[in-house]
Amino acid sequence: MTILALNLLTAGVPIALVCAVIGLGFAFLLIGQILRCSPGNDRMRQIAGAIEEGAKAYLNRQVISISVIAAVLFVLLFFFKDHPTAVGFLIGATCSLAAGFIGMRIAVLANTRTTQAASQSRTAALRVAFNGGAVTGLLVVGLALLAVGIFYYVAGRIIGHDLAVKSLVGLALGASLISVFARLGGGIYTKAADVGADLVGKIEKNLEEDDPRNPATIADNVGDNVGDCAGMAADVFETYAVSLIGAILVASLTIAAEPAAIIYPFVLGGISVLGAICGILFVSIAPGKPAGVLMGSVGTSALVSAILFWPATHMLFPNGVLISGIQRSPNDLYFASLIGLLMTGVVVLITNYYTSMNYRPVQKIARASETGHATNIIAGLAVGQHATALPVGFIGIAILLSFHFAGLYGIAIAVMAMLSMAGIIISLDAFGPITDNAGGIAVMSNLPKEVRTVTDELDAVGNTMKAVTKGYAIASAGLAALVLFGSYVEELKAHITSNGHTFDFQFSLTEPKVIIGLFIGGLLPFIFTAFSMDAVGKAAGAVVREVRRQIQAKPGILTGEDTPEYGTCVDIVTKAALREMIVPALLPVAFVVLVAVIKPLGPVVLGGVLVGTIVTGLFVAIAMTSGGGAWDNAKKYIEEGNFGGKGSFAHAAAVTGDTVGDPYKDTAGPAINPMIKVVNIVAILIIPIFF
Amino acid sequence: MTILALNLLTAGVPIALVCAVIGLGFAFLLIGQILRCSPGNDRMRQIAGAIEEGAKAYLNRQVISISVIAAVLFVLLFFFKDHPTAVGFLIGATCSLAAGFIGMRIAVLANTRTTQAASQSRTAALRVAFNGGAVTGLLVVGLALLAVGIFYYVAGRIIGHDLAVKSLVGLALGASLISVFARLGGGIYTKAADVGADLVGKIEKNLEEDDPRNPATIADNVGDNVGDCAGMAADVFETYAVSLIGAILVASLTIAAEPAAIIYPFVLGGISVLGAICGILFVSIAPGKPAGVLMGSVGTSALVSAILFWPATHMLFPNGVLISGIQRSPNDLYFASLIGLLMTGVVVLITNYYTSMNYRPVQKIARASETGHATNIIAGLAVGQHATALPVGFIGIAILLSFHFAGLYGIAIAVMAMLSMAGIIISLDAFGPITDNAGGIAVMSNLPKEVRTVTDELDAVGNTMKAVTKGYAIASAGLAALVLFGSYVEELKAHITSNGHTFDFQFSLTEPKVIIGLFIGGLLPFIFTAFSMDAVGKAAGAVVREVRRQIQAKPGILTGEDTPEYGTCVDIVTKAALREMIVPALLPVAFVVLVAVIKPLGPVVLGGVLVGTIVTGLFVAIAMTSGGGAWDNAKKYIEEGNFGGKGSFAHAAAVTGDTVGDPYKDTAGPAINPMIKVVNIVAILIIPIFF
Repeated sequence: MTILALNLLTAGVPIALVCAVIGLGFAFLLIGQILRCSPGNDRMRQIAGAIEEGAKAYLNRQVISISVIAAVLFVLLFFFKDHPTAVGFLIGATCSLAAGFIGMRIAVLANTRTTQAASQSRTAALRVAFNGGAVTGLLVVGLALLAVGIFYYVAGRIIGHDLAVKSLVGLALGASLISVFARLGGGIYTKAADVGADLVGKIEKNLEEDDPRNPATIADNVGDNVGDCAGMAADVFETYAVSLIGAILVASLTIAAEPAAIIYPFVLGGISVLGAICGILFVSIAPGKPAGVLMGSVGTSALVSAILFWPATHMLFPNGVLISGIQRSPNDLYFASLIGLLMTGVVVLITNYYTSMNYRPVQKIARASETGHATNIIAGLAVGQHATALPVGFIGIAILLSFHFAGLYGIAIAVMAMLSMAGIIISLDAFGPITDNAGGIAVMSNLPKEVRTVTDELDAVGNTMKAVTKGYAIASAGLAALVLFGSYVEELKAHITSNGHTFDFQFSLTEPKVIIGLFIGGLLPFIFTAFSMDAVGKAAGAVVREVRRQIQAKPGILTGEDTPEYGTCVDIVTKAALREMIVPALLPVAFVVLVAVIKPLGPVVLGGVLVGTIVTGLFVAIAMTSGGGAWDNAKKYIEEGNFGGKGSFAHAAAVTGDTVGDPYKDTAGPAINPMIKVVNIVAILIIPIFF
Repeated sequence: MTILALNLLTAGVPIALVCAVIGLGFAFLLIGQILRCSPGNDRMRQIAGAIEEGAKAYLNRQVISISVIAAVLFVLLFFFKDHPTAVGFLIGATCSLAAGFIGMRIAVLANTRTTQAASQSRTAALRVAFNGGAVTGLLVVGLALLAVGIFYYVAGRIIGHDLAVKSLVGLALGASLISVFARLGGGIYTKAADVGADLVGKIEKNLEEDDPRNPATIADNVGDNVGDCAGMAADVFETYAVSLIGAILVASLTIAAEPAAIIYPFVLGGISVLGAICGILFVSIAPGKPAGVLMGSVGTSALVSAILFWPATHMLFPNGVLISGIQRSPNDLYFASLIGLLMTGVVVLITNYYTSMNYRPVQKIARASETGHATNIIAGLAVGQHATALPVGFIGIAILLSFHFAGLYGIAIAVMAMLSMAGIIISLDAFGPITDNAGGIAVMSNLPKEVRTVTDELDAVGNTMKAVTKGYAIASAGLAALVLFGSYVEELKAHITSNGHTFDFQFSLTEPKVIIGLFIGGLLPFIFTAFSMDAVGKAAGAVVREVRRQIQAKPGILTGEDTPEYGTCVDIVTKAALREMIVPALLPVAFVVLVAVIKPLGPVVLGGVLVGTIVTGLFVAIAMTSGGGAWDNAKKYIEEGNFGGKGSFAHAAAVTGDTVGDPYKDTAGPAINPMIKVVNIVAILIIPIFF
C-alpha cells in the first residue's frame, strides 16, 4: 500500500492524463461507430446537410468574433499581467471553444443517423443519439483534464510550481470568458430562431413544429446544436477546468506542504473518466425504457467512481493530511468526495421533479393554462421560484458537511467530485439536441408515423435530460464559484502580506462596504439576464419580420408550392446573436474592474460583490432554468391530450408559456453559470494590479 | 440657542407628539371637508355603498382572523418573553390595523365624491381625491409617532429606560407582522378579484373594465381599497414605526451617553408632519396638471422638512456627538438626514422613469406586444430586472455616505428622514384607489363622457403614483431592515457579554455558516413570492368559476336584463384571501425560528439569513413592483391608440402582461417589504430565548 501510495504520489497526474487520453480515444471509437451508421435517404441527408452547414457557418463566425476579443485580452494580459498567465488564457480559451466545436460537429452527424435508426427500433435510435452525445461528454472532461494537467506540468518545469499555479488562473479565465460568449451567443441564436419560428409559424400561421414551409425551421434546428450542444459543452468544460484549478489553488494556498493535495483532484477526475466510459457502455447493453436506461448510466458511472475513489484516497493520503492546523483522516477526504457524487444525484432528482410531466409542478402549470395565457405565466414563474428551495438547501448542507470534513479544501474536493461526473452528464445533455434534430428531420422528410413516434419519445426524454443537466450545471457552478471566492481571499491575503502590510480586511456583514458589495454583486445576475432576454427579444423580432416578409413575397410557401429561403433566416440569426452577445458578456468584467478601480470601493466591496453574485445568481439561474423546463413540458403534457390537447385554448396559453420559458431556460439562466465564475476569476487576476 | 437646545432636549419628544396630534387634527378637518362634498346621485351612492359594504365586510373579517393569530402571539410573548414586549406587540398590531382601517373607510367615502366633483372640474376632483388620500397619509405618520412616543415615555416611567427600549421591539413586531398579513390578505384579495374579473370579463366576454354586467366588478373595486389603500397604509405604518424604533435601538446601543440621539429621530418625524401638511395645502392652492401638482406637493414637503431639520439638529447637538469613538459635528448628522430626503426624491424619479408611459421602458413593452403575448412577457420581465439597477445603486451610495457621516446611527437617521416623508407619499398612494374607484363609479352610473375623461386622467396619474410609492416603500424597507440587522448584531453582542461570555462571532463571508445563512435568507423572498402568486392564482380561479357559473345560470346578465349577484364574488374572494394569506405570512417567522433552533446553524447562520433576505428581497421586490407597473402602463399606452389601440392583437398581449403584472406589483412584490422586517425583528426578539 505504501509503495502504491508513493507511486500515485509521483504518477498521479500522469495516470489521470492517461485516463483522459483513454476517454478521448473512446470518443473517437464512438465517432467511427456513428459514421458507420446510415445517414438515411437523400431528403434526410439534404436537410441534415442544411443544418450542418448553418451550424458550421455560425460557429465559424462565432470563433472569429470571439477570437478578436480573446486576442485583445491576450495582449492585455501579456503586457499588463505576465506571459504564462496570457498563455494559460489562450489555452483555456482554445480548449473551451474546441470542446463545443467538435461536440457540435458530431451532433450534426448523429442527428440524421438517429432518425434512420429510429426506423429500425427505439433502442437503436437511443444508442446512436446517446453515443453522439457521449462524444461531447468525453471530449469535455478529457480536454479539460489534459489542458490543466499539461499546462500545470509544463509551466511548473519552466517557471516553477508557485508561478505555474498562479498562471492557471489565466487558463480558468480563458475557459470562462469564452464560455460566457459561447453560452450567450449560442443561447441567443437558439432561442431567437426558436421563438421567431414559433411566433409566426405556430401562432400566426398554425404550422406544426419543424414544418418545412416555415422559413425559420432550419435556423431553429441549427440553434439546438449551437446552443444546447456547443454552448453547454463550453460551459461545463469551463466549470470543470475552474473546479480543478480552484482545488489546486486552495490546496497550494492552505496545504502547501502536501503535494498529494494537489494531485488528488486530478486523480478524482481521471477515475471518473473511466466511470463515464462504464456508464456509456451501460447504455449500449441495457434494455428497457430510454429514461430508465439513461438514469442507469448515471448510476453506473457514479458507482464506479465512488468505489475507485476509496483506494485512491487512501493511497494518496495514507496518514491523512494537516489542513489549516487540523489533522484530517483519509476517510474525511473520501467523504468530502462522496458528497460531490451525492449532490449530483440529488440535484438531478430534484430538477427532474420540477420539470418532468409526471409530477405536480408541471401539471399545475398545465392546469393553469385552462384559464389563459396570464395564469399559465403566473404559475410557471411561481414553479421556477419554488424550484430554488431544495437545490439551495442541499447546496447548503453540502457546504456545511464538506467544510466539516476538510475545511475549504473539503468544499473544493466535493466540487471536483461533482464535476468529475460531467462526462456522463454532458452525454445526457448533448443527447437532447440530437434527438430534437432527429425529430425535425423525420417531420421534414415526411417519414412514416412510426418513426416520428420513436423520435418524439426520445425528444421528450431529451428535454427532461437537458433540464436536469442544467440543474447540475448551475449547482456545480455555484459551488465552484464559492471555492474561487475562498481563493480570492487567500490570494488577497498573500498579496497584501507579501507587500509587507498586515492583512486586516474584514469581510464581515457588519461592514457597510460588504453590504454594498453584496448589493452590487447581487445586481449583476438581474441585469445580466435582463440584457440577455432583451437580446433574444430583438433577434427574435428580426426573425419574425423576415419570415413575414418571405410569406408575403411568396404566398406559395404556405401552400408548399414555393420553397422558403432558409439561408436568410440562418444569416439573420447568426448576425444578431453575435452582435447581441457582446454587451452582456463584457458586463461582468466591467463590473469587477470598476469596483476595483473606484477608490471608495476596493477589495472589501469586491469581496461582497463576488458573494453577492453567487447568491442571487444561483437563485435566478435555478428559477429560470427550472421554470423554463416546466413550461416546456407543461405544453407537451397538454399536447398529450390533457386539458383539451393540441389546438385548445389551454394549448395556446401553454405555447405562450413555452415561448417565455425559452430564453429563460436556454439563454439567460444557463449563461449565469460561466458569468459568476468570470466575476470571481477576474477578481483574483486583478488583485496584484489594483490592490 | 443654548436655552432652546436644552428645551428641545427635554421637550423634543413631546413636541414631536404635538406635531403628530396636529397632523391627526388636520386629517379630521380633511374628513369634514370631504363629507361636506356631494356624494352624487342615487345610482352613484348605491354603487359606492356596495363597494363600502364589501370593503367593510372584508376588513372586519380580516381583523377577526388576524386578531386570533395576534392573540396567540401575544400570549406566547406574555409568558415566554416579558409583559412589556407583549403589550408593545399589542399596541403595534392595533395601530397598524387601525391606520389601514380608518384610511380605507375614508377612501370609500371619497370615491363617489370624487366622481361627483369630476362633473364640475378636473381640479375639484383632484383635490377631493387627494384630500381623501391625505387622511391616510397623516393617519399613518401621526399614529406611528404617537404609538412609539407614548409607549416609550410611559414604559420608560414604569420599567425604566433600558427595558422600555427593549420592549419597543415588541411594538415593531406587532406592526410588522400585522402588516405582512394586511399586505398579503389585501394583495391577494385585490388581485384575485382583478385577475378573475379580467379573465372572464375582458378576455372571454369582451366586457370593458368596470362594466356593471361583470359579476366580479364590485369585488374588483373593493379590492382597490383593501389592497392599495389599507394594505399600503399598514405597510408604511410598519416601516415608519420600525425605522423610528430601529433608530432608537441603534442610539441606545451605540451612543447610550447622549439622550439627544434618541430624541432626534422623533424630532425629525414631528417636523415632517408639518412638512406633509404644507405639501397637502399646496395641492389645494396650486393650479396646473395633476401629475405636476402632486410632484410639487412632494417637493414642498421635502423643502419644508429640509429647512427645519437644520435648526433642530443644531439645537439638539450644539457640540456634536461622540459615536463609537468618533466625534461627529451637527452638520454630519444634518447631512445624514438630508441623504434620506434626497433618497426619497431619487427613488421617486427612477421608479417614475421605469413605470410611466412617457419613457422608453414602458414603450418597449408596448412595442413587444405587437409580436404577441410571449414577447410582451419577456420584455416586461426584462424591464423589471433592469429597474433594479439604479435604486440599488443609489441605496448603496446612501449607505456609504450616511455611514461616512455618522456610522450605523447615520444610516438610521437617513432611514428615519426618508420615512418621515411617508405622510405626503402615502397621500399620493391612497389617491390611486380613490380615483380608480371614482372611474368605476362613473362607468357603472353611466355618467357623461366628460366626467369619464376626467376620472380616466386622474386614474392614470394615480397608477403612476401607486407605482412610485411602491419604489419608495421597498427602498425604505430595505434600509430599515439593514438598521435592524445592525441592531441584531449589537443586541447579540450585549446578550452574550451580559452572560459573561466573550463575543467572538464572526459574520465574515469567509465563514461557511455565513454563506449558508445568505443562501437560506436569499431563498425566503423567492419562495415567499412563489406562495403569494400561487395564492392569487388559486383565488382568481375561484372567481373565474363563479363568474362563469353566474353567466351560465342567468344568460340575461350579459344582455343587461338580469343583475349579477355581486355579493357572492365578494364573499368568495374574502374567504379565499383570508385562507391563502396564512401560510406565506407565517413562513418568515418559521424560517427564523428553525434556523435558531437547529443546532448546527445558530446565531451566525441567522445573521447571514437576515442579510440574505434583505439582498434578494430588495431585488425581487423592485423587479416585481416596477415590472408590474410597467406592464400596466404599457397596456394603457396601447389603449391610447398606439400600436393598434384597443381591440388589436397587441392589446390582447398587453392585457396578458398587465394580468401577470397584477400579482407581481400588488401582492407578491410589496409584501416583501414587511416580510424582510419581520425576519429581522423576530431574530432580535429570540436572541435571549435561544442563544
